[in-house]
Amino acid sequence: MEKLSKIGRYDFLAEPFHCDFSNHLFMGHLGNHMLNAADFHSNERGYGMNYLNEVNRTWVLSRLAIEMVDMPKAYDRFSVETWIDSAMKFFTGRNFKIVGESGHVYGYGKSVWAMIDLNTRQPVDILAVRDGLINEYVETEYTCPIEKSSRVKMSAEADPIRSIDTYYNDVDVNGHINSVKYIEHVLDLWDLAWYKRHTIKRFEIAYVAESHQGDCLHFYREQRDTDIDFNVRIAKSNGGGEEAEVCRCRVLFV
Amino acid sequence: MEKLSKIGRYDFLAEPFHCDFSNHLFMGHLGNHMLNAADFHSNERGYGMNYLNEVNRTWVLSRLAIEMVDMPKAYDRFSVETWIDSAMKFFTGRNFKIVGESGHVYGYGKSVWAMIDLNTRQPVDILAVRDGLINEYVETEYTCPIEKSSRVKMSAEADPIRSIDTYYNDVDVNGHINSVKYIEHVLDLWDLAWYKRHTIKRFEIAYVAESHQGDCLHFYREQRDTDIDFNVRIAKSNGGGEEAEVCRCRVLFV
Repeated sequence: MEKLSKIGRYDFLAEPFHCDFSNHLFMGHLGNHMLNAADFHSNERGYGMNYLNEVNRTWVLSRLAIEMVDMPKAYDRFSVETWIDSAMKFFTGRNFKIVGESGHVYGYGKSVWAMIDLNTRQPVDILAVRDGLINEYVETEYTCPIEKSSRVKMSAEADPIRSIDTYYNDVDVNGHINSVKYIEHVLDLWDLAWYKRHTIKRFEIAYVAESHQGDCLHFYREQRDTDIDFNVRIAKSNGGGEEAEVCRCRVLFV
Repeated sequence: MEKLSKIGRYDFLAEPFHCDFSNHLFMGHLGNHMLNAADFHSNERGYGMNYLNEVNRTWVLSRLAIEMVDMPKAYDRFSVETWIDSAMKFFTGRNFKIVGESGHVYGYGKSVWAMIDLNTRQPVDILAVRDGLINEYVETEYTCPIEKSSRVKMSAEADPIRSIDTYYNDVDVNGHINSVKYIEHVLDLWDLAWYKRHTIKRFEIAYVAESHQGDCLHFYREQRDTDIDFNVRIAKSNGGGEEAEVCRCRVLFV
């Protein structure tokens, strides 16, 4: 395999039907493009899903933070740059930069990934894959000037806002609820009237457990220090059993 | 504007996160690619949304039928070919052909579009736009060997299956529930266990009225002649008022 540059760059179009009422790309679709960029980048460099599935392993997204100056508008062409900025035994850090054609920086992303064994679903040693190949691609100089995700602390008093069922279209090839669907469901907690007055400055999500089609998802929300800054917890239940936490988010608006 | 060929061809990738549990592209995402192809095709030829919005008009999708042999799998590259096969005063017919890299034909689509005035929301004369420019692009020879949509007849006894609320992510730039979201919601009426035994052979949807964020959508389903052939009606209500029909579908499985 030819040695590629550490930073991958992938071009996307803000498709008109992927834009919200204000003609700006939905955050969920941006998240999807970022996951695609991560997938293309790692596959091209030999440590992506295509290879991992042969050795019964897969990447699992653990945390994702996205911080935007503004969002691409319909028909805007933009690139997602992505690179690994740290590789440890059980966690890898991956950064993103979203850049327009003229060089305008729309925003950045930071993510943390684990690797699991497809049978045991337990974490495995990332550096054991292809003799630590990923280490050859760690890029620490290229800047990604946003904060890492920090642990979202929620009190037991967070308000239950909504419960939704999960269906066929929510499920990915692993049989789990698609990572991007959580983003969409969380952002749906605010209505159109809210989005007419606010835009999303920063979105953070930490994935705690997997959920499956048929699970009911429960959304709890609580305000942080200001009235435009929120924590959200998603819990799942199935058939009346106890709730189990699925993910936690922070959503900061401006 | 340079005179382009009558048939447009647009390339897409079956993105991994747009695929279902079986690793095949979701019908909703295919529908989205088809709408993109239609949008690119008409814009490039001077009678697309970009021009229409300047003269206070827009295209409205009235009917869409998709009939598939099989669905692209994750990472498959495919093209959507699209062309106008008839242009009348109030309706235009647009066909689609979904072709793989090696020439494999995945399936076809047929659609009917109207044009409306953005203020009155009333139909306007399509042939009056740019002196009937669209007529120069009508292609009647290229084959699209699937049946047109036919009117879906539903009895008053169709079973109410589900009611769902609509949120921020359902709404497009026109302030309406996105055409593709209806497709997803309809296909969500069957669960994963059903899709493990059946695939979608043909999907038809006729759009009757617009719905908006905050509307509650009610889904009614009834079997046709066989137990793999269904009609679905979507109705909307808002704030406890009477239900009004939004669209009708047919879903045929194999």
